[in-house]
Amino acid sequence: MKRITELDGSIRFFSYSAVGGYEERRGPLGEKFDYCDDSDKFGQKTWELSEAEMGRISLNIALSKAKLSHEEIDILVAGDLQNQCVSSSLGLSGFGIPYIGVYGACSTCTESLMVLSSFMNSNKEIKYGAAITTSHNSAAERQFRTPIEYGGQRTPSAQWTATAAGSFILGREGNVAIKEYMPGKIIDGATSDGSNMGAAMSFSAADSILSYFAETSYPISHFDYIITGDLGKTGSNLLCDILKKEKPGIEKFHIDCGMLLYDFEKKDVHSGASGCGTSASVLSTHFLPLLESGELKRVLFLSTGALMSPSSLLQGENIYGIAPLIFLENINL
Amino acid sequence: MKRITELDGSIRFFSYSAVGGYEERRGPLGEKFDYCDDSDKFGQKTWELSEAEMGRISLNIALSKAKLSHEEIDILVAGDLQNQCVSSSLGLSGFGIPYIGVYGACSTCTESLMVLSSFMNSNKEIKYGAAITTSHNSAAERQFRTPIEYGGQRTPSAQWTATAAGSFILGREGNVAIKEYMPGKIIDGATSDGSNMGAAMSFSAADSILSYFAETSYPISHFDYIITGDLGKTGSNLLCDILKKEKPGIEKFHIDCGMLLYDFEKKDVHSGASGCGTSASVLSTHFLPLLESGELKRVLFLSTGALMSPSSLLQGENIYGIAPLIFLENINL
Repeated sequence: MKRITELDGSIRFFSYSAVGGYEERRGPLGEKFDYCDDSDKFGQKTWELSEAEMGRISLNIALSKAKLSHEEIDILVAGDLQNQCVSSSLGLSGFGIPYIGVYGACSTCTESLMVLSSFMNSNKEIKYGAAITTSHNSAAERQFRTPIEYGGQRTPSAQWTATAAGSFILGREGNVAIKEYMPGKIIDGATSDGSNMGAAMSFSAADSILSYFAETSYPISHFDYIITGDLGKTGSNLLCDILKKEKPGIEKFHIDCGMLLYDFEKKDVHSGASGCGTSASVLSTHFLPLLESGELKRVLFLSTGALMSPSSLLQGENIYGIAPLIFLENINL
Repeated sequence: MKRITELDGSIRFFSYSAVGGYEERRGPLGEKFDYCDDSDKFGQKTWELSEAEMGRISLNIALSKAKLSHEEIDILVAGDLQNQCVSSSLGLSGFGIPYIGVYGACSTCTESLMVLSSFMNSNKEIKYGAAITTSHNSAAERQFRTPIEYGGQRTPSAQWTATAAGSFILGREGNVAIKEYMPGKIIDGATSDGSNMGAAMSFSAADSILSYFAETSYPISHFDYIITGDLGKTGSNLLCDILKKEKPGIEKFHIDCGMLLYDFEKKDVHSGASGCGTSASVLSTHFLPLLESGELKRVLFLSTGALMSPSSLLQGENIYGIAPLIFLENINL
């Protein structure tokens, strides 16, 4: 089985943006967000529409930064956590751009960048395409667990779903290229505990990382970081335990977006950030600027998704994880 | 904007299968299904797991017909209508094949074939990939409307969600090639009536068909049929009204999978079949065999999706349609 697709380096990050809410602005990356709405509402009357509007704003900002009109974008690839991914379809409907909806739970950011790369590699006439990922704390909590107004107690392994959107316009110019991509496998997370997604996803992250190094000849030190999406403390510890055992030393390169978005002193987020907006906004506010500036040269980036629904959990099914991977490089260094 | 991607004809249908339930066996295509379970349960204890198992069986049958092991498949692209697409992730988890989850509502069959083609075109080392689509009447009705046990009255424009799965193994050999693909745009369906999906989707089908002929130089007669997914009677009539006005004569080439799956005399399906299993199973049982045998040479195939969720409908949002398109040709004629 050949999992990795190599690209020629011509698919690059042309522009990107991050939009967040109140907690995201208060976090350590807060100043790097392009726009935050402290009400988390983005002028809308429901949390679901707030998320849709956040995604729309995020794409508009990425377009503005790129000095591009929406008519210059040939394809959108997007996804979110709402049932039937309506945040993406409602929020992006007004752009009139051909659309591919993806569902990968919190792996959406990497998945959408991978699918978009594939479309752009398959058709060299596509000059620009965009990948958009959103999650909203209040929309997600009431859908997956309980409405936030209920004030339910959360376990230590629980994570805080980010109110965040990340939009990425890929083009043929820029410093940072997507060099390779590798889809993830659906891996049994060995738990049905909806408050411990990090644990459930850690096995899929381990599978993807170890498979990647098994299929390639790169030494681990080829990369500055191996970045996971939203494993949080619990999941990151589990992942590092597996990596230490299977390929000692590799765990030192691991860093998790779910540990970077919030200030653990200021805000009790328990195990860390989660939601597909986590890896999307941390890629946009933190890792891409570091790659652009040359502080980082090469990273492996794996958003991590927990494949389950409230019904599947109530019916006693395990949570399955998935961790697609992309290899990002500043090719002008 | 360049919407159409042209392929070199090397991506072909290598094997395919269709699995259904009681009503599907009783329909005019019943004998062409590879397997039907009259209980609609596929040995499972919940409708949700029944759908997952139906998808698993369907891929296994396609593998058997191709004399391939699951280890020879490099990538799966799949989707369904269940919240968070758990039918696909649970049903396909056991294969251990790298996985791309898509969400396009009832446009999933065409969307997944398009995404798979893009991955295979982008990486010529992928010898085989599979696209899987499922929908289940009882799982969908209780999620989107009311449990079937409730016995609610249905309106004349309502459709019958198919209990059906279609699996397609694409390879580099076979008579029928995917020649082109074109993603759909998200088009406002101008209704929020969850019992009239056909109407909501008709505008997106019209947009895709008219855009396709505007971008290409093919005469309409280049194709034997222009096939839509599940517009049903109401949606097909609306589509033909639009086509008659915008490009007279083209409406004569239109045929809808939602009108072919059930016998309207035997079973009161109201406006016709719906659900993403409709176009998947009708492609597998009807159109692909006709293309293979040479009775058809070229068709345009557009599964049609209604982008909405029960929450978005309750919140008064319109239903948006999407209609990705693929051009299929028997290249050995």
